Amino acid sequence: MTLLQETQGGKVPESIVRAAGREGVDATELAREVAAGRAVVPANRVHARGSLSPLAIGRCVSTKINANLGASAVKSSLAQEKAKLELALRAGADAVMDLSTAGDLDAIREMVVDQSPAPVGTVPMYEMVLHRDVEDLKVADMLAVIAKHAEQGVDFFTIHAGILREHLPHAVNRVGGIVSRGGALLAKWMVHHSRQNPLYEHFDEICAIMREYDVAFSLGDGLRPGALADAGDEAQYRELRTLAELAERARQAGCQVMIEGPGHVPLNQIEEQIRYQQEVCAGAPFYVLGPLVTDIGAGYDHIAGAIGATLAAYYGASFLCYLTPREHLGLPDEEAVREGVVVFKLAAHAADVARGFPGARQRDDAMSAARARFDWPKMFELALDGEKAKSMRQQDACPGDDYCTMCGRKWCAVRINNEVKEMLAAQQP
Amino acid sequence: MTLLQETQGGKVPESIVRAAGREGVDATELAREVAAGRAVVPANRVHARGSLSPLAIGRCVSTKINANLGASAVKSSLAQEKAKLELALRAGADAVMDLSTAGDLDAIREMVVDQSPAPVGTVPMYEMVLHRDVEDLKVADMLAVIAKHAEQGVDFFTIHAGILREHLPHAVNRVGGIVSRGGALLAKWMVHHSRQNPLYEHFDEICAIMREYDVAFSLGDGLRPGALADAGDEAQYRELRTLAELAERARQAGCQVMIEGPGHVPLNQIEEQIRYQQEVCAGAPFYVLGPLVTDIGAGYDHIAGAIGATLAAYYGASFLCYLTPREHLGLPDEEAVREGVVVFKLAAHAADVARGFPGARQRDDAMSAARARFDWPKMFELALDGEKAKSMRQQDACPGDDYCTMCGRKWCAVRINNEVKEMLAAQQP
Repeated sequence: MTLLQETQGGKVPESIVRAAGREGVDATELAREVAAGRAVVPANRVHARGSLSPLAIGRCVSTKINANLGASAVKSSLAQEKAKLELALRAGADAVMDLSTAGDLDAIREMVVDQSPAPVGTVPMYEMVLHRDVEDLKVADMLAVIAKHAEQGVDFFTIHAGILREHLPHAVNRVGGIVSRGGALLAKWMVHHSRQNPLYEHFDEICAIMREYDVAFSLGDGLRPGALADAGDEAQYRELRTLAELAERARQAGCQVMIEGPGHVPLNQIEEQIRYQQEVCAGAPFYVLGPLVTDIGAGYDHIAGAIGATLAAYYGASFLCYLTPREHLGLPDEEAVREGVVVFKLAAHAADVARGFPGARQRDDAMSAARARFDWPKMFELALDGEKAKSMRQQDACPGDDYCTMCGRKWCAVRINNEVKEMLAAQQP
Repeated sequence: MTLLQETQGGKVPESIVRAAGREGVDATELAREVAAGRAVVPANRVHARGSLSPLAIGRCVSTKINANLGASAVKSSLAQEKAKLELALRAGADAVMDLSTAGDLDAIREMVVDQSPAPVGTVPMYEMVLHRDVEDLKVADMLAVIAKHAEQGVDFFTIHAGILREHLPHAVNRVGGIVSRGGALLAKWMVHHSRQNPLYEHFDEICAIMREYDVAFSLGDGLRPGALADAGDEAQYRELRTLAELAERARQAGCQVMIEGPGHVPLNQIEEQIRYQQEVCAGAPFYVLGPLVTDIGAGYDHIAGAIGATLAAYYGASFLCYLTPREHLGLPDEEAVREGVVVFKLAAHAADVARGFPGARQRDDAMSAARARFDWPKMFELALDGEKAKSMRQQDACPGDDYCTMCGRKWCAVRINNEVKEMLAAQQP
């Protein structure tokens, strides 16, 4: 039985107890949310027996973030991927995806599963076309790769089963076209063979493999808008409705499901898009990439994405895929990975505070209290990236704790406020 | 006559024609908005005769951003301030404030006014306490400093006239207390002397000086919340209502007015706060500092601020004061200034796109079109910070234009999309 099936039978499996325990939520309640398809605990049986520390994703728990790692044909190596993984986890990534498209893929994937207590995701499609052109890809090859990733202990797969042949005319003439790698490859396959998406046609066989190892689906949005101009278009919404149908089929087959989302979306469309997704997908956890609120942020796209992500998580998304400053420009290096993780932790946290998630604001209140009493060690402990905050503070010589170089001691509002407080207290009769 | 008075008399002064021309809006319409107090064109007569290129701030024009510059007692110099000014303007700052609290203040201020085509703001309060303790400050000293800044050509002053003695008990026991420098200094003066805020009591005399040089008010929020816990509290709202009264008095006296806003505000309170400010202040341009949507972002507070600022500008703010990565930690250096400016340009632009400001999205559409055809020079031209984007792209060896190191050539979705497009077109009968 899969986790989903156990919870549907009224059980509270150990993975769910552990995931609930990590955030101080009630395990029975989390199990009910998993049973209803509104939360997932991606936990491949192989990884669960090893290094995995089970993690819940859904509206009943705190907002989670994913860091995309992986080597590309032109960059990175096993050693660099190991370094990026460690760095991403230390910076606070809740989950990681290994999106490698070059190098020894098995070795990298096995290293990541072995080393990561965080759930690990992959996009099996990438390996399918590693040593062949996409046109030459056979269904048996596809299923074999999916089965291998499942055996290796990957906890969730992005499967682009929702991009259909009939969607393509709506997508290719967009301003941004098809910007998902998996989506674009499958589109090429479909057009070349004049056939339907093989991942859609063989969805039940994929479900059977994933059920065996209890791999969760992350239904990929191969037609996500990659430009503001394309947001909310026919291509995006037709695919989303297909994803909603597939989500139901996957759950019937015993598999947990998340739905992937955009992309590039103007700020004013985010609420509507998220609410629509939650409605058609019956509350399935929504896993968004940004969304980026402008197309002109190159070099700062982690920020364009974090603005959209904060709003998305406030309105209903549960899982945020980070972007790094190198988005649209090149593969992230270690510094970019760290920056992306911290900025998306900030977005997730700000959204949790805004939606009143229990306990979220305590850390802000403790930070502000520490700031008011000039308790720098406490501030560095509470900051999202205390290391960076500390190094910035120490960059300037600043003798004395009760001010910083921003205003200097005499003009420090925090220090003066404390004086005013004492003066007012002394004036009390 | 001041600009405000001229527009109220039905005239369309040259400064307004020039400010309207810069953004392709109708000058008569802009003059009407200025007359109604819903837009400002800060233009000190002295600066207007010199380097100033007049700039409009309000909902009828694009969202503007301000960069705070200035030396503190522990950091910077005239030369460094000149470098920071040039850098801020090159990065796209629409206005700058010189917040120096040390060094040769007159020399720095005169240099900034002389060199800056952008409107220049100051907080005269800082200079008032330069060579004395705040308790020793006399009203005559205050007015003398204000008059000197006006003569030197400063276009807008932050005047903390709205923080009243009776507000203080609501503020000092907050989690974050009083976090505005000017507010904290005035609070200390009021408590020490057991008297009302002198800037409030002598507001008409201040108006008279500002009218003479046509300096615009930026009514400072000395009680802005500096912690999420303090957002929307009595102290903040009582001061805001006082600011609304003062705004009306200033306009009666012929002066243009902006209202300053928070601070630290949870995301879910931003819409309500902005709408309330617009209502009580009769649509006066709202000039916000962030707001920061979390307190734990030290080292990344420009991002915590940009998230709030994007939403604020979407809902009604017209003018965004940048934050830099060094906020709460130290005085920004040149790299921090540049980073702050670009990130707030991004926020302002994303908000303009979201509110459907005419023409705003054209740049995004052109960027995405350039991306789809791998036109890298065009992308660097359209990006908010093309220099940085270009240097990131060039960091990796990437022979060939039709991909980047993110995916490599074979996996590049943009390239594959173009192939699919051609294949589909070829299949058309």
